Amino acid sequence: MTTVTPDDVRGVLAIMPTPATADAGDPAAVDTVDHAESARAADALVTDGVDAVLTTGTFGEGATLTWDEHRAFARTVVDAVAGRVPVYVGATTLNTRDTIARARELAGLGVTGLLLGRPMWSPCDDEATVRFYRDVTDAVPELAVIVYDNPVSFRGKIPPAVYRRLAEIPQVVAAKYPVLGPSFLADLDAVGDRIKILPVERDWYYTWRWAPEAMTACWSGSASCGPAAAVELRDRLAAGDAAGAEAIAQEYRYASRTFFPKGSFELFSTYNVQLEKIRIDEAGYIAAGPCRPPYVDCPDEYAEGARESGRRLADLHRKFAGDRA
Amino acid sequence: MTTVTPDDVRGVLAIMPTPATADAGDPAAVDTVDHAESARAADALVTDGVDAVLTTGTFGEGATLTWDEHRAFARTVVDAVAGRVPVYVGATTLNTRDTIARARELAGLGVTGLLLGRPMWSPCDDEATVRFYRDVTDAVPELAVIVYDNPVSFRGKIPPAVYRRLAEIPQVVAAKYPVLGPSFLADLDAVGDRIKILPVERDWYYTWRWAPEAMTACWSGSASCGPAAAVELRDRLAAGDAAGAEAIAQEYRYASRTFFPKGSFELFSTYNVQLEKIRIDEAGYIAAGPCRPPYVDCPDEYAEGARESGRRLADLHRKFAGDRA
Amino acid sequence: MTTVTPDDVRGVLAIMPTPATADAGDPAAVDTVDHAESARAADALVTDGVDAVLTTGTFGEGATLTWDEHRAFARTVVDAVAGRVPVYVGATTLNTRDTIARARELAGLGVTGLLLGRPMWSPCDDEATVRFYRDVTDAVPELAVIVYDNPVSFRGKIPPAVYRRLAEIPQVVAAKYPVLGPSFLADLDAVGDRIKILPVERDWYYTWRWAPEAMTACWSGSASCGPAAAVELRDRLAAGDAAGAEAIAQEYRYASRTFFPKGSFELFSTYNVQLEKIRIDEAGYIAAGPCRPPYVDCPDEYAEGARESGRRLADLHRKFAGDRA
Amino acid sequence: MTTVTPDDVRGVLAIMPTPATADAGDPAAVDTVDHAESARAADALVTDGVDAVLTTGTFGEGATLTWDEHRAFARTVVDAVAGRVPVYVGATTLNTRDTIARARELAGLGVTGLLLGRPMWSPCDDEATVRFYRDVTDAVPELAVIVYDNPVSFRGKIPPAVYRRLAEIPQVVAAKYPVLGPSFLADLDAVGDRIKILPVERDWYYTWRWAPEAMTACWSGSASCGPAAAVELRDRLAAGDAAGAEAIAQEYRYASRTFFPKGSFELFSTYNVQLEKIRIDEAGYIAAGPCRPPYVDCPDEYAEGARESGRRLADLHRKFAGDRA
Repeated sequence: MTTVTPDDVRGVLAIMPTPATADAGDPAAVDTVDHAESARAADALVTDGVDAVLTTGTFGEGATLTWDEHRAFARTVVDAVAGRVPVYVGATTLNTRDTIARARELAGLGVTGLLLGRPMWSPCDDEATVRFYRDVTDAVPELAVIVYDNPVSFRGKIPPAVYRRLAEIPQVVAAKYPVLGPSFLADLDAVGDRIKILPVERDWYYTWRWAPEAMTACWSGSASCGPAAAVELRDRLAAGDAAGAEAIAQEYRYASRTFFPKGSFELFSTYNVQLEKIRIDEAGYIAAGPCRPPYVDCPDEYAEGARESGRRLADLHRKFAGDRA
Repeated sequence: MTTVTPDDVRGVLAIMPTPATADAGDPAAVDTVDHAESARAADALVTDGVDAVLTTGTFGEGATLTWDEHRAFARTVVDAVAGRVPVYVGATTLNTRDTIARARELAGLGVTGLLLGRPMWSPCDDEATVRFYRDVTDAVPELAVIVYDNPVSFRGKIPPAVYRRLAEIPQVVAAKYPVLGPSFLADLDAVGDRIKILPVERDWYYTWRWAPEAMTACWSGSASCGPAAAVELRDRLAAGDAAGAEAIAQEYRYASRTFFPKGSFELFSTYNVQLEKIRIDEAGYIAAGPCRPPYVDCPDEYAEGARESGRRLADLHRKFAGDRA
Repeated sequence: MTTVTPDDVRGVLAIMPTPATADAGDPAAVDTVDHAESARAADALVTDGVDAVLTTGTFGEGATLTWDEHRAFARTVVDAVAGRVPVYVGATTLNTRDTIARARELAGLGVTGLLLGRPMWSPCDDEATVRFYRDVTDAVPELAVIVYDNPVSFRGKIPPAVYRRLAEIPQVVAAKYPVLGPSFLADLDAVGDRIKILPVERDWYYTWRWAPEAMTACWSGSASCGPAAAVELRDRLAAGDAAGAEAIAQEYRYASRTFFPKGSFELFSTYNVQLEKIRIDEAGYIAAGPCRPPYVDCPDEYAEGARESGRRLADLHRKFAGDRA
Repeated sequence: MTTVTPDDVRGVLAIMPTPATADAGDPAAVDTVDHAESARAADALVTDGVDAVLTTGTFGEGATLTWDEHRAFARTVVDAVAGRVPVYVGATTLNTRDTIARARELAGLGVTGLLLGRPMWSPCDDEATVRFYRDVTDAVPELAVIVYDNPVSFRGKIPPAVYRRLAEIPQVVAAKYPVLGPSFLADLDAVGDRIKILPVERDWYYTWRWAPEAMTACWSGSASCGPAAAVELRDRLAAGDAAGAEAIAQEYRYASRTFFPKGSFELFSTYNVQLEKIRIDEAGYIAAGPCRPPYVDCPDEYAEGARESGRRLADLHRKFAGDRA
């Protein structure tokens, strides 16, 4: 049984891509993981202060890696992190049993837990959602679980009533929360202190204003463009420096302004993998490399928005990396 | 390279479930395929006159079978059918490379082709859709492909412009078309005679009125409740018996009236697997057995609509099975 | 009590715009109806063979005319038509009582009936929809009613169960049906011969193949680009000339291909007024004139699609106007 | 030219219903406004401390009042308020010119300004939205305008880029903002101090945590169930009493929990008028009376949720009315 508790989930949970070899866009390619860059990136994130590493969600290409690649990459990350911070690895598949099988293998590799979204060929209704998380945690109780709540990928936001039921599962310690929306407070009420709700880094300050005790951690995909600002934000919030935290929050909002095509999360979701990898490559902190099929193409106009966001994030990282060094 | 052409796709393409053992709802179950019933069912369909067998799409639980089960089931069906009619097997996964790997194994088992939907963690845009089908058919050219166009499962109907491009791929011989909607004629124009558009059996007569030369085949999930009426419909259409065909079409529409919860295809899609299996079990022609996790639960009210539909289809089958015997 | 029956609704029901003066885009303009062109256009349609004139729906600017203009325009059309064919005039408002008040005034002008959509500030549920049509027909029983079923403007397609209840209202004689979709046959079953279902002219042949007795009339907005082809289509269908009718249906489909921005009815609906008026002006059969505020602007790319459609329709009209002259 | 500035918009802007006579549900009823109750209610709100009165939006039945009733009601409210606080009256119609005509009459009655949503027969795109507000304010510059941003009624949330353009219109002083969603901060950035963004009372505290200088006013429909808690919330926020304000915010969230059917704003919008009036009648502070056609019926289950919410709000009012007396 996992010993991780919601209270253990703290600080900046960085989400990293799965660095790809040059041929990764080729459907005939067999081992497309750039293990050297993967190890270097995971180490860099930890060295630069993040509090956990999350992998193989959406832009981490949990969908498009083969299981052999996925498992090998998880091993590389676990080894590189070397116990300094927790490591959560994706195990979303099309069904409960495949997820359990993968979870067992990941447990054997020493991951801390799973970043786990629901099967999505058909939408999971409330019962299926609860059943899924319960079945997986019953089968692999030694792993903690971060619920991955992505309303587009997994077909509907998890509603408060389901959060309430998931909160009864001890292994479910956190939820990677989507963009701040109208049911945030109801979700927070529903889980109490039994699930750590994780906002994205640019919403963190704002949710902290509402619930400073609860809001002690965030997820950050942009950490893969350099985590220094997120780490500084963490420290300012911990110090109760509201004005300082707000200043960083505003920089994050500025940096993300060009990232969502036409301001639409729906549209973004069609190009989620591509846009995140383009942004990361532009920022230069991690070499994400080409996208794996079939999520390869991306309209130029959207790609340029991602690159601009990457440049802004790189500037932001440099600013605070300097300050902190 | 497959020798199957669009013109070879004719008559009733029956979609069968993957009959399940009694413990199939248990996430710890390992081999949940009832092979004896699978063989019996495939043989019964062929004996009763269907022109092809399709498996492991949505209600065939392509999502929730393990690959070991899926492959073993495909072998059982191929063996039971024994070359009497073509067999198309599902190979939809979360990405191109996994689909290719599965397609290769299925080719080795002697299937005729694939019933193939798109990866659906993120939506595939037009480019990704074309790329996906092209990559798979390039890698496994010996298999014919029936495009599985399900706007909910695979996140958006395939638009005419994409159909036009898919029609350039020789191995793409047919499309399992969704419920008749406003772009049907544009889709038909787009593919010409290079892709056989397959309506559901209850729409068949209506599309045949529009394009009798093109509309020489249908898909039928209800064939798993007994195929006699669909087979008779085929023969009446072939004979140009419009009034006789319309009479059967109306019976199918009557039988389906209670099947879609609140008349909604969107809502149906959340319970697609459960409702189809409940309906098939009620009809009694095939023992579909329990659903595999996580798509297990279903509101009672919707289940009762499915059972009523199953009873109507069983009556319809008996009526024409008698006539034809 | 109206003496119009569903059986009286036959042939081509042309929808005409409300021709506008040059200053009609100015919110300070007071009387923006070009009455001379309105009279000329109504007369031309009747002379050229249409079987009814419908006004002041969506592109007829039922929303953006003042009631003084609307009423004066109705009088002009009634006078120009002079009893040769029925005239149906829009009376959609934000509520039941305003609609009844308008309907009474229109009855006094001698219109045959109403082209009537539902209030749309809030969506009408099933009860509100039935209540609305019942209240209006109870209050003004001397007018026939064509239900205007526009799923975007009036927030949701009228479902079969509501059609069944509307069919019990004797004054409801027809329904301006939206683009052919999956519930067409269920709607037709629901109304039987008590409501005449009116397809758009380009769907008419296709629905006639399904139900030749029922499909004896269509609505046609494109008639305002010249009605000759629609009138010819009517005659071919009446003569049972399926091949000849199909040929015209295909021409209509060709002509409409550039009309719907990105093939989307949803997107079209945002620019419905503008695109229809641009198309009509390009075709040159009626001078529709500028749009009334606030529906004035339109992206150039969409406007060009409308103009191309107008040119195609003008060609089509000329072709059959010549044939028929 | 109005002298009202965004800075003048402060405190609790109470939205009141249009109290109805007993026959108001009858489509033959002519004058359905209960003027005595209207005057009493407006006076009670002002006496009990609200800072402005808003009328004839959605639940104020701006859609279903005749203009004669609407205008007479506005006069009654203006007279009852007697200049003690500003009065904003609805003037949403189906088009620009009707709105301008109504605005002129309302200006003559002495209203402070308009509560103004967009025409909604067809959706207004960005250009049409800006054009609409500009045309109305150009024509009736003596009235201030509160933009009514209701994404269901007026077909889409106003995006940040449009808020930016509306902020350039001096008469546009405030926006009745929908439920707190992901673009709140972008909207706030877009308008700066040129438009006062008004959250609903139960979101007020939360938005105040983010932007205390900007968040000096709220709208409150629940004030019509008794305004004492909202007024107390205002005073606590003004005093910087964060903990005290949060306590009231939580009570408001508790009171609203049963109000939205199945937690859905979309579903609520179909029954907005009915549910608000049922809630107000249950609370007993104002006699809202029957709904006007066609928005009359409401499923029992949803009505009961509204009544429960009304009881909770009545308790909340009593609690603070006592404290404040």
